[in-house]
Amino acid sequence: MLTDGVALTDHHCHGVVAADLDRPGFERLLGEGQRGTFDSAIGLAVRRWCAPLLDLEPHADPERYLARRAELGWRETTTRLLRASGTTRWFLDTGFGGGRAEFAAVAPGEVREIVRLEQIAEQVIAEVSIATMPFEDIETTLRGRARNAVGLKTIVAYRYGLNFPVTDTLPSTIIHELRLTDPATLGWLVGLGARIGAEFGLPLQFHTGFGDTDLRLQHTDPLLLTDFLHATAGSGLSVMLLHCWPFHRNAAYLAHAFDHVHLDLGLTIPYVGQRASAVLGEALELAPFRSMLYSSDGYGLPELHYLGALLWRRGLGRLLDDWIADDAITLADAEGLVIAIARGNAVRTYP
Amino acid sequence: MLTDGVALTDHHCHGVVAADLDRPGFERLLGEGQRGTFDSAIGLAVRRWCAPLLDLEPHADPERYLARRAELGWRETTTRLLRASGTTRWFLDTGFGGGRAEFAAVAPGEVREIVRLEQIAEQVIAEVSIATMPFEDIETTLRGRARNAVGLKTIVAYRYGLNFPVTDTLPSTIIHELRLTDPATLGWLVGLGARIGAEFGLPLQFHTGFGDTDLRLQHTDPLLLTDFLHATAGSGLSVMLLHCWPFHRNAAYLAHAFDHVHLDLGLTIPYVGQRASAVLGEALELAPFRSMLYSSDGYGLPELHYLGALLWRRGLGRLLDDWIADDAITLADAEGLVIAIARGNAVRTYP
Amino acid sequence: MLTDGVALTDHHCHGVVAADLDRPGFERLLGEGQRGTFDSAIGLAVRRWCAPLLDLEPHADPERYLARRAELGWRETTTRLLRASGTTRWFLDTGFGGGRAEFAAVAPGEVREIVRLEQIAEQVIAEVSIATMPFEDIETTLRGRARNAVGLKTIVAYRYGLNFPVTDTLPSTIIHELRLTDPATLGWLVGLGARIGAEFGLPLQFHTGFGDTDLRLQHTDPLLLTDFLHATAGSGLSVMLLHCWPFHRNAAYLAHAFDHVHLDLGLTIPYVGQRASAVLGEALELAPFRSMLYSSDGYGLPELHYLGALLWRRGLGRLLDDWIADDAITLADAEGLVIAIARGNAVRTYP
Repeated sequence: MLTDGVALTDHHCHGVVAADLDRPGFERLLGEGQRGTFDSAIGLAVRRWCAPLLDLEPHADPERYLARRAELGWRETTTRLLRASGTTRWFLDTGFGGGRAEFAAVAPGEVREIVRLEQIAEQVIAEVSIATMPFEDIETTLRGRARNAVGLKTIVAYRYGLNFPVTDTLPSTIIHELRLTDPATLGWLVGLGARIGAEFGLPLQFHTGFGDTDLRLQHTDPLLLTDFLHATAGSGLSVMLLHCWPFHRNAAYLAHAFDHVHLDLGLTIPYVGQRASAVLGEALELAPFRSMLYSSDGYGLPELHYLGALLWRRGLGRLLDDWIADDAITLADAEGLVIAIARGNAVRTYP
Repeated sequence: MLTDGVALTDHHCHGVVAADLDRPGFERLLGEGQRGTFDSAIGLAVRRWCAPLLDLEPHADPERYLARRAELGWRETTTRLLRASGTTRWFLDTGFGGGRAEFAAVAPGEVREIVRLEQIAEQVIAEVSIATMPFEDIETTLRGRARNAVGLKTIVAYRYGLNFPVTDTLPSTIIHELRLTDPATLGWLVGLGARIGAEFGLPLQFHTGFGDTDLRLQHTDPLLLTDFLHATAGSGLSVMLLHCWPFHRNAAYLAHAFDHVHLDLGLTIPYVGQRASAVLGEALELAPFRSMLYSSDGYGLPELHYLGALLWRRGLGRLLDDWIADDAITLADAEGLVIAIARGNAVRTYP
Repeated sequence: MLTDGVALTDHHCHGVVAADLDRPGFERLLGEGQRGTFDSAIGLAVRRWCAPLLDLEPHADPERYLARRAELGWRETTTRLLRASGTTRWFLDTGFGGGRAEFAAVAPGEVREIVRLEQIAEQVIAEVSIATMPFEDIETTLRGRARNAVGLKTIVAYRYGLNFPVTDTLPSTIIHELRLTDPATLGWLVGLGARIGAEFGLPLQFHTGFGDTDLRLQHTDPLLLTDFLHATAGSGLSVMLLHCWPFHRNAAYLAHAFDHVHLDLGLTIPYVGQRASAVLGEALELAPFRSMLYSSDGYGLPELHYLGALLWRRGLGRLLDDWIADDAITLADAEGLVIAIARGNAVRTYP
């Protein structure tokens, strides 16, 4: 397939659990909800595709898979899966799932950091006295961290929704929350991230679309960012819409409408399993080819990093095979499109 | 096909019209809007698949189909179609389309009752004096009816929208509506249904997605239930999202996120005809396999009960044939998945 | 294919740019956003399908394509592309992109006018003194223009959103905007269009779904028209929902629910390129066959008029080929369906 062997830049992922896992522990990480399950599209994909990397037959049953995984140990399993993904560069969101050094110890290739705005702000707030208005401290800390980072990330979709107030002014007060949810503070924080991102040339990633039960899915539709995108158009900022499902067509429209907007299907691809090709097809209806990136959003289980890559290869590969067979695109153009999504667009937009 | 001959539990349907129908009468029942039409995906499916059961060639034209239907009479037509569906258990929403005894007289297999909350409440309100606050009467009546039922159903999507207030407190007053639309009363009623459902082990079904012109489609998005689902998680209640189109991906997300949430594509499958496989594929992107159920939502025309079953068999059968051919699932796992959706998940969640 | 050679009525399009274009100028018209690009589904389609009409090999690269286009000149290019579309009747929205005479000079077949409500109102407002309340003038002008038109069009989706107030009463005042955005005025204007449309037998077209960055996509969901559709049901008005993506399933539901509602995929088809078949399939899940029309929404580039037609032919043709191969529809019924969408439904609903 056209996508076989293409080196990937995973522009958004997390670390892995450095421990062997029992079935409940493994399944919990196999879902975004209260409880994951092998009995789902992603569970089928783990059994079909990860099992052979652990020397098992394809479709090994869950108990057998987990027994073999424990036998090999989490570290060997991780090494095998991450290597097999064909990823040579990882941009790690260190706001959740462990730090850069930890991941670099098990991952092949280069590991760069994505700094999470909310984590920085919450750390600063936790350290200052309740009487302080720590806006300057947050900005200073963020600027410091940004210097060594390759990008910024916000999870405002989880904390309030993508309909946060678009503003550049300081809130009149800050609520000393250990888990920020105040819209005025979050709006200011995202605005700060956008200014620093434009200044440093760091893309700003937004979680959009599905995720765990902390979010209200209807508040994660990237269309809610339209005012923010108008405000940041021409500022030099690159915006990255992550995951997007089931709003991936909406995200594709935004990438079509705004030059500085990009998207990936991140988390979506490993979860939808056999349906990756269909979902990629929907996103490519309107998204300019220069606007699509690859990520796995792998978190906790290296299976996710691997399946993100494998199912992306298979899904995009098949889609393009069909297009080529139908003479809708030339082989050379299809190869160019694969490289662009695999790493070219990331190389161009990230420092 | 894998789905051939599998006995179905139709966990949500209605009775049939006990009369012969002329073309306007038939077409009216062939649509959810102001007027149905043979000239649509479902009309093609009736001609293709139901005509042979009435001893006609496939694709018989509408006039010929209706003439033969009248010749056989509604009862014989109904018997043939319901039998051919391969359904052995029917959970009948008696709030619309006739009662259990009537349907049991024409349907093969077991018929159990689903009690509609709004119907109970409206009957009680109609019988008490205007000065009365009949909250206790409604609860007493509902508890009585629940004893013989297999599940509860709410059509709050039609009456107000799925953004009803989530509450356990009594409204300060009750509006003596013969057709309940007051959000406070409806919110209380749904909360009552949820408590009784949890106590009796009866799933609570929600109409979601498309339906007749009484509803505003944007108010039937199951995502609007997110607060309700948070409130009922862990209570023991099973929630059933019915139909769901065009929000079936949203429903699948909720089933992924919440252990007590289930979904079907009920009404959707007969209506989308040839597209059933595509729609099922979208729902299975995220829905855990334990969360999907089968229903026809057949109402008025036994053609709908039959097409629900037939198109579900064909749609899911083809999807799984493709997955098997592609080595994405084993035959044994695919068989297990078919049984789970056909009846296993209903058997597990209903009493 | 079934759709080859079928004469089309393009019930919504615009004029073309009467000038040769450089690459930035051409690409700007190849997108609805800040900037279009050849590097997209529609760009691939231009190179694959339009290049041969300009005597180039399929997939000619953009520079070569534009050089040849300039060599031929815009007029010859336009003539070739419009003729190749197989369109014999064009309903031209003269509110944007030039007038009827201009387009008739280059287009084969009949050209009729669609009058844009906002343009009429804004012209009247620009001509009267600021002290005047020009409601009567607008109505008089609109009635005059309607006499020679084949339909009316509103872009309230761009100016406020489809959640405009549904009213028949005059606003208390009119804001003398050169670009109307006041919801009360827009609501009144759409209501006026609906009354005149019903009186004259002229369908009222609504822009819905994606478009340029002036709109908020979430405000263009045709479901927001539900109250308006209730208000106009039975009035004699035909409503045309244009483009619809990514809300085409919602539009299909409205056409299913309301007899007077129709839809097309207009702008969508050329943009989604190879995906036209998939998108048409989604719309046909619920849309009655009598409710679907063809349009290209071609604007600026005659490539769009041509691709609208060509990709519609290929997309619908393949979908129906599959259905025929699968014995889901007869050849005769499929041919009838093609004619209905190609022109029959337009002939029936337009004067």
